[in-house]
Amino acid sequence: MGRPRRSEPTRQRLLEAGAAMLLEQGYHGTGIQPVLDEVGVPKGSFYNYFDSKEHFAAQIIGHMAEKVCAGLEELKQEARKDALGALRRDLRRRIQGFEGHFSGGCLFGNLGAEVEDSELCRTALSDAFRAMSACYAAILAAGQAQGSIRDDVKASELADHLIDGWEGALLRMKVERSTRPLKQLVRRLLDDDFLA
Amino acid sequence: MGRPRRSEPTRQRLLEAGAAMLLEQGYHGTGIQPVLDEVGVPKGSFYNYFDSKEHFAAQIIGHMAEKVCAGLEELKQEARKDALGALRRDLRRRIQGFEGHFSGGCLFGNLGAEVEDSELCRTALSDAFRAMSACYAAILAAGQAQGSIRDDVKASELADHLIDGWEGALLRMKVERSTRPLKQLVRRLLDDDFLA
Repeated sequence: MGRPRRSEPTRQRLLEAGAAMLLEQGYHGTGIQPVLDEVGVPKGSFYNYFDSKEHFAAQIIGHMAEKVCAGLEELKQEARKDALGALRRDLRRRIQGFEGHFSGGCLFGNLGAEVEDSELCRTALSDAFRAMSACYAAILAAGQAQGSIRDDVKASELADHLIDGWEGALLRMKVERSTRPLKQLVRRLLDDDFLA
Repeated sequence: MGRPRRSEPTRQRLLEAGAAMLLEQGYHGTGIQPVLDEVGVPKGSFYNYFDSKEHFAAQIIGHMAEKVCAGLEELKQEARKDALGALRRDLRRRIQGFEGHFSGGCLFGNLGAEVEDSELCRTALSDAFRAMSACYAAILAAGQAQGSIRDDVKASELADHLIDGWEGALLRMKVERSTRPLKQLVRRLLDDDFLA
C-alpha cells in the first residue's frame, strides 16, 4: 500500500481549523486530535501533511500572515485615493470585529509569548510581523505622499509604531474585556497627531 | 495537630520563585511542585498560603505590580527635576536588562494572552496595567509642567501610549531576539516628538 497522497484542500482545512484553535486556546491548549476531528481526517494522515505539532503551528502562522497581507492588498488600492481614510476604516473594522468577543485577539501576538522556545515558530512569527509592517508601511507612505500622514519619520517606522501600539492595546483589551484601549490608540494615532 | 502557621517570609519567597517561573515558562508551563522544591516547602504547606494555582498566579501578579510601582517611586523623585531625562534613563535601563536575554520580557504581557479564562488573573492583570500606567502618568505630567513632554494630550493617555507601545515592542523583541524594536520605540517616543 503506497503512502496516501496529500490533498491541498485538506491541508488548507487543517490550517484553518488549527488557526482557529490556536487563536482561542493557545499553543499548549491546542491538541492535534480535536483539529483532525473537526476536519474529519484520520490521525494517521496528519503526518502526511506536517512533521510535528510545532511544524503545523509554524505553517499556520505563515498561512495566516499570507491571508492578512492578501486582505491588506485591497486596503492598498483604497489608499491610492485616500490613505488616511482607508487606514481609519480598516482599524475601525478590526475593532468592530472584537466587540463583545475579547478572547482571540491577534494570533501572532498571542503566540509570541508562548512559542519562543521554538525556532521554527519564532521565525515564522518574526516574518509575519515584518510582512504586516511592510503592508502598512506602503499605505502610510501613500498617505505621506498625499500629505495626510507625517513625513518626518519613515513610513516603515510609523508602521512599526502602529503594530507595536496595536499589539499592546490588544493585550489590554483582553485583560479589560473592552475595546476601549483599541479605540483610544486609534484616536491617539490618527487624531492626536501621533501619525497623522 | 493544629494547622501550621503561615510565615510571611515563606509566602514572599513562594511569590518570588513563582514569579520567576511564570515569567520564563508561562502559566501552563509552571508547576507548583518545582516552585515548592526551589523554596524548600513541603507540598502540603502550599495550601496554607494559596487556595489554588490560579489564586497563586493572581497573588504573584499583584505582588509584582507592587514591586514595579515601588521601583517607579524613585523615578518619580528623579522626575521632579527632569522628567524627560528620568524617563529616558528608566527605559534605557530596562532595555539593557533585556540585552542577550530575550525570553522573559514582561510578566503581565506574557500572561495576558494565556490566563484570560481566569477572572481572578485577568482582574489582577488589569489592575497591574492600571497601576503602572498611573505611575508613568505622574512622571509624564511632571514633564508636561516642565515643558519637555507634549501637553496637548492628557498625561494618562500618553502613559497608556507608552505602555501599549512597550508591550508590542517586547513581543517583537521576543520573536526577533533583538532589543532593536524597543530601542526604535524609545527613539520614536522621545526623539521623534511622539511624546516629547
